[in-house]
Amino acid sequence: MTSGQFPFGDTQIITMDGNAAASYIAYLNSEVVALYPITPSSGMGEMADARAVKGEKNIYGTVPKVSELQSEAGAAGAIHGALTAGAQASTFTASQGLMLMIPNMYKIAGELTPTVFHVSARSLSAQALSIFGDHSDVTVVRGSGFGLSASANPQEVLDIGAITIRASLKSRVPFIHFFDGFRTSHEICKIRNLPEEFFHEFIDLEDVYACRERALDPKRADLRGTAENPDIYFQGRETVNRWYDEAPGIYEACCELFYKLTGRRYAAYQYVGAADANSVVVLMASGTDTAEKTVEILNKHHGKKVGVLKVHLYRPMDGALLVRALPQTVRRIAVLDRTKEPGSVGEPLYLDVCAALTHALQGMDGYPSIERMPLVIGGRYGLSSKEFTPGMVTGVFKHLEEMDKPKARIWTGFTVGITDDVTNTSIDYEEIDAENPDAFKGKFFGLGADGTVGANKESIKIIGENTDLYTQGYFVYDAKKAGAITISHLRFSKDPIKHTYLIQQPNFVAVHNPAFIERFDVLEGIEAGGMLLLNTTHQPQKVFTWLPQDMQETIIEKKLKVYGIDATAISEEVGLRGRINIAMQTAFFRISKVLPEKQFLAAIPEAVQKAYGSKGKDVVDKNVQAMKLALERLFEVEVPAQPVSTQVTRKAVTYDRSSPDAEFIEKVVLPVMAAKGDSIPVSAIPENGAIPLNTAELEKRDIATHLPEWDPKVCIQCNLCSDR
Amino acid sequence: MTSGQFPFGDTQIITMDGNAAASYIAYLNSEVVALYPITPSSGMGEMADARAVKGEKNIYGTVPKVSELQSEAGAAGAIHGALTAGAQASTFTASQGLMLMIPNMYKIAGELTPTVFHVSARSLSAQALSIFGDHSDVTVVRGSGFGLSASANPQEVLDIGAITIRASLKSRVPFIHFFDGFRTSHEICKIRNLPEEFFHEFIDLEDVYACRERALDPKRADLRGTAENPDIYFQGRETVNRWYDEAPGIYEACCELFYKLTGRRYAAYQYVGAADANSVVVLMASGTDTAEKTVEILNKHHGKKVGVLKVHLYRPMDGALLVRALPQTVRRIAVLDRTKEPGSVGEPLYLDVCAALTHALQGMDGYPSIERMPLVIGGRYGLSSKEFTPGMVTGVFKHLEEMDKPKARIWTGFTVGITDDVTNTSIDYEEIDAENPDAFKGKFFGLGADGTVGANKESIKIIGENTDLYTQGYFVYDAKKAGAITISHLRFSKDPIKHTYLIQQPNFVAVHNPAFIERFDVLEGIEAGGMLLLNTTHQPQKVFTWLPQDMQETIIEKKLKVYGIDATAISEEVGLRGRINIAMQTAFFRISKVLPEKQFLAAIPEAVQKAYGSKGKDVVDKNVQAMKLALERLFEVEVPAQPVSTQVTRKAVTYDRSSPDAEFIEKVVLPVMAAKGDSIPVSAIPENGAIPLNTAELEKRDIATHLPEWDPKVCIQCNLCSDR
Repeated sequence: MTSGQFPFGDTQIITMDGNAAASYIAYLNSEVVALYPITPSSGMGEMADARAVKGEKNIYGTVPKVSELQSEAGAAGAIHGALTAGAQASTFTASQGLMLMIPNMYKIAGELTPTVFHVSARSLSAQALSIFGDHSDVTVVRGSGFGLSASANPQEVLDIGAITIRASLKSRVPFIHFFDGFRTSHEICKIRNLPEEFFHEFIDLEDVYACRERALDPKRADLRGTAENPDIYFQGRETVNRWYDEAPGIYEACCELFYKLTGRRYAAYQYVGAADANSVVVLMASGTDTAEKTVEILNKHHGKKVGVLKVHLYRPMDGALLVRALPQTVRRIAVLDRTKEPGSVGEPLYLDVCAALTHALQGMDGYPSIERMPLVIGGRYGLSSKEFTPGMVTGVFKHLEEMDKPKARIWTGFTVGITDDVTNTSIDYEEIDAENPDAFKGKFFGLGADGTVGANKESIKIIGENTDLYTQGYFVYDAKKAGAITISHLRFSKDPIKHTYLIQQPNFVAVHNPAFIERFDVLEGIEAGGMLLLNTTHQPQKVFTWLPQDMQETIIEKKLKVYGIDATAISEEVGLRGRINIAMQTAFFRISKVLPEKQFLAAIPEAVQKAYGSKGKDVVDKNVQAMKLALERLFEVEVPAQPVSTQVTRKAVTYDRSSPDAEFIEKVVLPVMAAKGDSIPVSAIPENGAIPLNTAELEKRDIATHLPEWDPKVCIQCNLCSDR
Repeated sequence: MTSGQFPFGDTQIITMDGNAAASYIAYLNSEVVALYPITPSSGMGEMADARAVKGEKNIYGTVPKVSELQSEAGAAGAIHGALTAGAQASTFTASQGLMLMIPNMYKIAGELTPTVFHVSARSLSAQALSIFGDHSDVTVVRGSGFGLSASANPQEVLDIGAITIRASLKSRVPFIHFFDGFRTSHEICKIRNLPEEFFHEFIDLEDVYACRERALDPKRADLRGTAENPDIYFQGRETVNRWYDEAPGIYEACCELFYKLTGRRYAAYQYVGAADANSVVVLMASGTDTAEKTVEILNKHHGKKVGVLKVHLYRPMDGALLVRALPQTVRRIAVLDRTKEPGSVGEPLYLDVCAALTHALQGMDGYPSIERMPLVIGGRYGLSSKEFTPGMVTGVFKHLEEMDKPKARIWTGFTVGITDDVTNTSIDYEEIDAENPDAFKGKFFGLGADGTVGANKESIKIIGENTDLYTQGYFVYDAKKAGAITISHLRFSKDPIKHTYLIQQPNFVAVHNPAFIERFDVLEGIEAGGMLLLNTTHQPQKVFTWLPQDMQETIIEKKLKVYGIDATAISEEVGLRGRINIAMQTAFFRISKVLPEKQFLAAIPEAVQKAYGSKGKDVVDKNVQAMKLALERLFEVEVPAQPVSTQVTRKAVTYDRSSPDAEFIEKVVLPVMAAKGDSIPVSAIPENGAIPLNTAELEKRDIATHLPEWDPKVCIQCNLCSDR
């Protein structure tokens, strides 16, 4: 990842998600942490709290005071207070939580008090609530006086987070350090750590002392929080200009120092791609990784000259620095915003780029002069964690190229990733394969709380720590939590994994619950020669017969290797009913061959000990026993030359086709239930978020592997045996 | 104002401030009003509440339910609930109050629910709290999906407010209707009313019924407020595009219908000035009036070709409509924002204009094509009710012209109205006289709670109702409320009063408290031949001697007529100690001759009856008696040819000149106390809003006209006799 020529270039390899990375650096650099949990930021607070309970110390040698307040408004107020008292203080939030912090944020910034809030950016509730990721929360506070600094992946969360902390202390501009909710906050991968010693080198204690010097102090008392009248408020508001003018330079200097210490190079506005690119996309946060990977492929294999400008420093925005970062050859620019501001002339980042280019065109001081205005268009992508793929990036470049054509050209407000058949904002795209050629790409269909996600996280750690492979794990939950489907997307590769999107063409698929076979298209996109691992109660010779016809056809056509194991029986036998994870994990390791057998056979018991040691030897032994049984019972399924089943339909859903709700059920509910919701066009969705009642009853989940028997003698009316 | 050829062109003349106008139309058009008071919006809520208590009905024939909630968050939640239940609902707020409404606003807009919130736009607390007016609150919500519609003066509050209500109902886009806090919310003037019958004509009941049709209703139940996952949230967010695309056209159509009914013409983007202007300023709300007046004068008397684009429809912003509203000849544009977003490339409206011009330059569909980009620059003005004057507008045009010069050119982020000697953002300007030549321009120095403001409001009503004159009253309070200075600025003119700034060159000055003579420069800017009215306990022949030398010089040099009256004694004599208002008002009417004597002698008792009738005949009689005594006791002061006083100093302030706070006291506290705070440069203001302690003790106000004598037998320890 980086070489040993840098003092902190060769630090420990760790596996963590974005929240863990942010929480770690925030904790190390804080004396006070005030928080209120909100998805997807809660993990940051939980981890900080756990550290404090354990008595872990910050870089100042003290245990931070971690408190949960009554709301995000209280958390922001507590932080404002702590900062005013001279403490290093931080908080974590997202979405509406950030909205409740706004009044305090204006105060904190108005008083030029450095701090970094870590935000796992999330949609705001509009036509519906969504817990997923986009930039609609962080862009609301772009006028607050807080800086905004964006990270694309867990490594950047650590790195840019650290840079932001130093930049805030140096510049006195408080910052929001944000990264995409779920896509980054919950993606785990193998990264280089920044150990505590790094911060001793990187954080300038003089800046910390300066915070204390500026604190409210009875020994040199002054008055804060005054009221100002029209006579002096305007002047007071302009006093801060100098700090904002200097902040981008300070941020750049922090990037430079960070490079000298770690060998990892960042910049406020980081251009990647052809030096003589004619088309460039501009965006920020997790999408930049996918764009970078796509640009690499388009330049190398498709004869394009394209590039991507990665915006790390969104506020204070240095327009001149941004334009300077673009290649001089650029003629077409597409700015991609991960938010929507209905009724605006363009989305936030797009407006900034238009203004910066206008400045350059007019020869404004400090700007590189440009002779003519490049074509600049703007679009939306990835709202609420909607996928953003190499195909979409390619589609955006194609759209840029086709702006010459006289047909319907969409200048601003185009969308990519959905089908807008109402106002026709969506542009066409075709997926391209941007995966690393060597990559293991596994999809694991699990049931919430069956241990699949936990086991996969363990597998990623084991592989990360025992190989040179880069690792990545992303976990798609549905909102039903326990008992609902989870799909784990695992990538392992010798090359860096800049794929911040779901696996489209897996070469490994594991189905941990037999019921999913008839519910989902589990083999969608699978590569020829790939592997399928099934948890099944069927005998080896019956497994293939059991599968529906289309699966059988795909298996034969794509020459898939199929494996089976009755993990449910194993979990019963060892006395861990329902916990099928160790058996399935063992099977995965054996057939995937990502690790030599000897290594994983040593690593699994070790991981089991770590995970369940506290629950006693008995639980550990049962798990190890499950591993052993799995090795014995895993079998390969013989695949015939022709399909043997005529059962083609997935599980039928019955509903009244004459009901007024039938159209909504067909167009929305059924595709959503089949995990095909991405294909639903705009026209099918109600404009005000209102939906028919009783659609939940259509989803008879039938996921139980065991049926309850009612025993009136012991019934405590828990109701879990009921089934509507 | 408008002629009788329009059905509602000739309606009743009324005198009201912006808050009263907004409250009136909101009340008429609401079934539910939920509110929480915050300066300067509180009046809107109070008046709506008072109407409901009196049982006044809305246009639907019912009494609106008016409730005060626990905070603005609660008010917004209640409105969201009422709207979802199909009611017409509204609220009033400002500043941080609006911030607390943000989460509900995203929901209301996301569900496409029409409503209009009336906002008296106010600064957000940053380095200090300020209750005064600018656009830093309303611009924060520009991405919320709410429309934003701006009014410049009380007549527009009524008119644009009505247009906005109809536009919201027609378009389903909810709106913020905003106007400048204090400058418009508290400016009273004579306007044409929109009677209830107007709304019966103007509001389309079909739109109101449609709200009810869309309401939550158990008889046709549906589900609202769902959670959406990545599969459909993005599509859901794009369903609303059509409504936002159509809203500007609907707004324009509402303006057109409004014109047909009233004869008053508005447009989303309203250009005023030379048809062949080369320079144009773009701005919104109260500043547009001053800009319009200035442009008129610059074109007529200074040989300029300039114009102003008044933005009424800020969101949804129709960039094409905006560019189309500009004259084709425009080569230079200055966009003026009444907010500051530290760290942005440019302020909000400026960014929009840059993007709209970029679109036009690129030949985007729907835009008028322009051959080259006009020069476009952006600046800030009027933060927290900082004055915005014709001189400043002229300065902006001059700055635009001088952008050719190679010297320090400020492209964006220039400021006008202050002296920024730190980052040198401020541009120079010189005041110009843009007053109507016939105008009465009176300044009245009163003491909070002495009745001066109330009496002036009465005078404005009396004059408005008894003459053809346009009227305007604006009242400068300081934050100390009761017992502090109030300066009333009254204008009367045959021509429309588009002067949304304080009177700089009064031709009438009244000093209602003798103590002000030695504290403030009450004659600042007074016109030659003007009048000075003094409340004084001195005998006529002693009055001139009592004045300080510089006042005497000004009086002689400018040939001022000076009048005296002992209103304090009159108020004592009639038994209304401290209430000097009727005596001073009578004196004002007699010497100003704005009304014939017969008229005001009839009007004052009438007004007294209206104001104090409820307190009994005795109080009314005492006031009428005060009027009569005032007529007897008013005297003209003989002015000698030379000053007779050598007393030049204003009241001295003593402080420790060697204290570390001395510099702050000299540079900030003393000018603020002398009402010269506008001249304080940026360098004198602390960058974090912190100020030294104990500066309040410097301001020994000495404003009591009576001194208490302590009587231990009756003392209830009220402490009012204490004086530090």
